[in-house]
Amino acid sequence: MPEIKDILLGNQKAGARMIRLIENNDRCAFDLLKKLYPHSGNAFIIGITGSPGVGKSTLIDAMITEFRKRDFKVAVIAVDPTSPFSGGAILGDRLRMQRHAADKKVFIRSMASRGQKGGLSRATKDTAIVLDAMGYDIIIIETVGAGQAEFDISFCAHSIGIVSIPGTGDGIQAVKAGILEIGDIFIVNKSDRPDAEAAVLELEMMLEMRSTQGQISNPSPGWTPLVQKTIAPKGTGIKELVDTFLSHFDFMKKKDLIEPKKKDLERLYFNSLLKDLTLDKLMLFMESSEEYRNVLQKIKSSSMDPLNAAEIMVNKIIRF
Amino acid sequence: MPEIKDILLGNQKAGARMIRLIENNDRCAFDLLKKLYPHSGNAFIIGITGSPGVGKSTLIDAMITEFRKRDFKVAVIAVDPTSPFSGGAILGDRLRMQRHAADKKVFIRSMASRGQKGGLSRATKDTAIVLDAMGYDIIIIETVGAGQAEFDISFCAHSIGIVSIPGTGDGIQAVKAGILEIGDIFIVNKSDRPDAEAAVLELEMMLEMRSTQGQISNPSPGWTPLVQKTIAPKGTGIKELVDTFLSHFDFMKKKDLIEPKKKDLERLYFNSLLKDLTLDKLMLFMESSEEYRNVLQKIKSSSMDPLNAAEIMVNKIIRF
Repeated sequence: MPEIKDILLGNQKAGARMIRLIENNDRCAFDLLKKLYPHSGNAFIIGITGSPGVGKSTLIDAMITEFRKRDFKVAVIAVDPTSPFSGGAILGDRLRMQRHAADKKVFIRSMASRGQKGGLSRATKDTAIVLDAMGYDIIIIETVGAGQAEFDISFCAHSIGIVSIPGTGDGIQAVKAGILEIGDIFIVNKSDRPDAEAAVLELEMMLEMRSTQGQISNPSPGWTPLVQKTIAPKGTGIKELVDTFLSHFDFMKKKDLIEPKKKDLERLYFNSLLKDLTLDKLMLFMESSEEYRNVLQKIKSSSMDPLNAAEIMVNKIIRF
Repeated sequence: MPEIKDILLGNQKAGARMIRLIENNDRCAFDLLKKLYPHSGNAFIIGITGSPGVGKSTLIDAMITEFRKRDFKVAVIAVDPTSPFSGGAILGDRLRMQRHAADKKVFIRSMASRGQKGGLSRATKDTAIVLDAMGYDIIIIETVGAGQAEFDISFCAHSIGIVSIPGTGDGIQAVKAGILEIGDIFIVNKSDRPDAEAAVLELEMMLEMRSTQGQISNPSPGWTPLVQKTIAPKGTGIKELVDTFLSHFDFMKKKDLIEPKKKDLERLYFNSLLKDLTLDKLMLFMESSEEYRNVLQKIKSSSMDPLNAAEIMVNKIIRF
């Protein structure tokens, strides 16, 4: 069992142990998390999302280096199953990441996208709270796509960067997938490819439409979403990208958007916890209640049908 | 509100109205369903699954014709969003289906795969109960793939047909997707294509491995899964396919497998209902409880954090 004080001191072993408890949906995790929660709320949480192959991991790798130059402590949660952080990609990528391994102010953690007992979305949110309480200034969450059924990044992050590459028509896809609505910063990676300018223009045009049509809500009211070109392996545009993320955070602070955002995220977190804890309790009931076993027996012997049985059972379990 | 007696008489308008209530997760639906349930359990439920483009709908269309020749009443639930039954495919397909429209002993219903308030799986299962109680002898459920997150056909059907086409390496895919484990009958459609024999052989080889290795459970113990060739638009192999499905049903009856299967499905249905009704209740609580609104307010004013709030709330709601 990890010690709260070790986690708060930023001890990476204690942090890793805590995150493992979260992933196993261990009952202790919740109690520890309650103690950590009041110490969270200081980190700047960045979501980086985009299709597989756009180079998110290399980009994040370069961003880590840039943030470290400025002496920020950086943590990464890779929810993307194809991420080399998650062990999903080729060895070369994995080795490249290793260069941060010796840096005690960098912490990289991958989330298995399957088999999270308590749900991926909750495990990620909970892990972000731990990393936040550990004192990381910047937490980067890497996901494939946004708005996917299992995980919605806008549930966790202050600032969302959408990564695309030229020549894939990703812009149109972004509109379709509703990704355009949640992005604060749009990153055209691999911008040494021929169609880079066209990709930037296309995105800017669509963002223009977003701001003038007003149909699509702006995640940070008053903030004009920016399109930024990068070539991640060469480090091109990374300094500017990090500047932009930090200025977005500054913007939110100056416009008093951090607190409403925090409250909004807390409401969503509360609602999802309510659902998760309810299902946890139901699971516990099914595993341990004699009443439940009796009803199963009645269904088996046809003295009760599943509909009536479920209704009776639920009315017994739920006080509302 | 549909009348129970009209549904039991097989009135299609009443049935359609009932299914609409199910899709809207209307509270009345559950009460009506409880009354219909004792009248269900007579139909033979067939699941037809396979990737988009393998011709499932054309196959089902031909199967309907064959079942009608033998004077069976047939109902189809299309869960596949790309199915022409669901309006997802080209006009030609849709028109072709129309030929059963005048036949009062055929009932075709599509399930929207999005926006099912109570979940797609539950809506499909509930709809099958309605069609069963309406007196349809055969209920065919069409889905894309099995074991998909949102819907598991083996949760509903007595007999499962897996459709593939030659030359797509679907066999290997089937193993990967775990589809091989749940199939009772394997249908190689479009079998006038060059690689048809190879596709049949590949499937038979893999089924051989399934039976000898014993690692994969057989959904109908003692039943040797068959591979059947069809050319759906020409009707080739359809008579034999229908024969095979009916003999699988006979086999299950003779071996007393129907009752254990029914009990198994009932247990699964009960468990999923328990979960669904619990979440329904939670939703109702969140919509109408003043206590819930008070807690939201406390989170907003920072006098309570989301973790503690959720725990207190859940302990109040759940009696267990």
